[in-house]
Amino acid sequence: MSGSATYADWIAVDWGTTHLRAWAIGADGMIRAEAVSAKGMGGLARDKFEPALLDLVEDWLGAGPTPVLACGMVGAKQGWQEAPYMRIPAKPAEMMPMRATAVNDARLSLSIVPGLSQANPPDVMRGEETQIAGFLARETSFDGILCLPGTHTKWVHLSAGEVVSFQTCMTGEMFDLLSNHSVLRHSVAGEALNADSFADAVSDTLSRPERLAQRLFSIRADATLNGTGAAVARARLSGALIGAELAATRPYWLGQQIVVAGAPALADLYARALATQGTTARAMDAASLTLAGLARIRMTQKEPSPT
Amino acid sequence: MSGSATYADWIAVDWGTTHLRAWAIGADGMIRAEAVSAKGMGGLARDKFEPALLDLVEDWLGAGPTPVLACGMVGAKQGWQEAPYMRIPAKPAEMMPMRATAVNDARLSLSIVPGLSQANPPDVMRGEETQIAGFLARETSFDGILCLPGTHTKWVHLSAGEVVSFQTCMTGEMFDLLSNHSVLRHSVAGEALNADSFADAVSDTLSRPERLAQRLFSIRADATLNGTGAAVARARLSGALIGAELAATRPYWLGQQIVVAGAPALADLYARALATQGTTARAMDAASLTLAGLARIRMTQKEPSPT
Repeated sequence: MSGSATYADWIAVDWGTTHLRAWAIGADGMIRAEAVSAKGMGGLARDKFEPALLDLVEDWLGAGPTPVLACGMVGAKQGWQEAPYMRIPAKPAEMMPMRATAVNDARLSLSIVPGLSQANPPDVMRGEETQIAGFLARETSFDGILCLPGTHTKWVHLSAGEVVSFQTCMTGEMFDLLSNHSVLRHSVAGEALNADSFADAVSDTLSRPERLAQRLFSIRADATLNGTGAAVARARLSGALIGAELAATRPYWLGQQIVVAGAPALADLYARALATQGTTARAMDAASLTLAGLARIRMTQKEPSPT
Repeated sequence: MSGSATYADWIAVDWGTTHLRAWAIGADGMIRAEAVSAKGMGGLARDKFEPALLDLVEDWLGAGPTPVLACGMVGAKQGWQEAPYMRIPAKPAEMMPMRATAVNDARLSLSIVPGLSQANPPDVMRGEETQIAGFLARETSFDGILCLPGTHTKWVHLSAGEVVSFQTCMTGEMFDLLSNHSVLRHSVAGEALNADSFADAVSDTLSRPERLAQRLFSIRADATLNGTGAAVARARLSGALIGAELAATRPYWLGQQIVVAGAPALADLYARALATQGTTARAMDAASLTLAGLARIRMTQKEPSPT
């Protein structure tokens, strides 16, 4: 994607566990170039972060130092340099101080966005704070619940531009482990998801959440005994896990204004799950939220504090 | 273990997904020899079962065909030959017909014990029916609940020598996946388990089972923010999952006579979990139940039905 001489006014970087994505932003605020690589934080030793970044962005660098603003797991303890969590309540776009990070190449001036933490119940996020900043840049007066479904789904209570509280459910990771690595894998292969079975499983789990542990193996047993198809079995697994998540997050969504921002199919699934409880949620494609958040944070940030 | 000429009156075989264990039994009913291998059903193509068995038992075979009675996943659809489930209610030691299995070596006469199935709610077991037969051979008048904890824990209601109903919870598999393959693996390493944290997590989960999805990531967040040790974090994970299992199986254990038969440390853990609810369970080492069950089934079995 890079290659021609495209000087960036600054560079936005979304650096998660399994991916690295960078954007060259012009002085006019427009995207000049974009590049991605599979060099996520999870596979990099500390001294490999700068080379991985330069591989992507070197062609965008002029003579003077170019500001680079990065968010995500790059700032975790096991990342390039730890950017300690900010304690909530906090305004995500005003999360000072950014963490200035020592680099070898003088053409880079790197800052890492800190994650957010909550004392009680203990919870953390890293990366989603930037999506929240992007969301709030668009919907400045939003008061309600933002749900960010994914590997670790975040339920975030926003009020007056602040994160008031949040809760993480590892539903996506559970679904991945159970559907690919447990005995259930034999029964839930494929991508198809039966809509009625999904809605039934969500409703059943919400009305009897204490039965979750029994529901899971039943999916396999029913497939074995009765030849239940994979689209039904997969819907039951997904519905049971999302149902369990809704049972645990009821205080977040009951009677609240809700936006679900995620990959479209997943955001739709959460909206349908909430609909079984008579709750209407607005689904939103989260694809551009991280970049919008980085731009918003860059606008409001002060000078990086010295390392 | 084999090697010298030890002729068996018959051979007992416990053949699970990951292990193969065989015993040479003399005409007096005593164990003459024992052998184990890692050639579990999960890693064998259909034509590799007989060689794997012969590797273990060949030295025990005389001229005439020696009866071999096998239980476990060897009888699954993906096993050596499917031994269709018997529908409950059923008496495990009288589970006729055994499945006679065609073999190439005329010195073997193989029968496979069928598993048990339940229509509603759908459930299946394969291997545990033999442990149940072994348990009932010892405790002929037992009326109550037998819990067999493991990868897929079985809760079994026994009355008048019959399996009346049962329920499977995949708690062991969930614990394995979450403790070794999820983000929680960073927080729960090692084998130590804090007893108080375990009891607290069981009780908390039983009083608020709908919060399970929230508890799991909290374990990680608390370790990240507050440096909670692995023995506490591991106890919280184990307690949350076993607590969720007890929530789902409450009709099985509330006010019942209960025996937990498993590996001693695991049986003890379940007994401690039940004790938090004021329920006393008798823990029993399950090590010898499968062989006792195979012996009991052999005593009561009729001639194998033709294939």
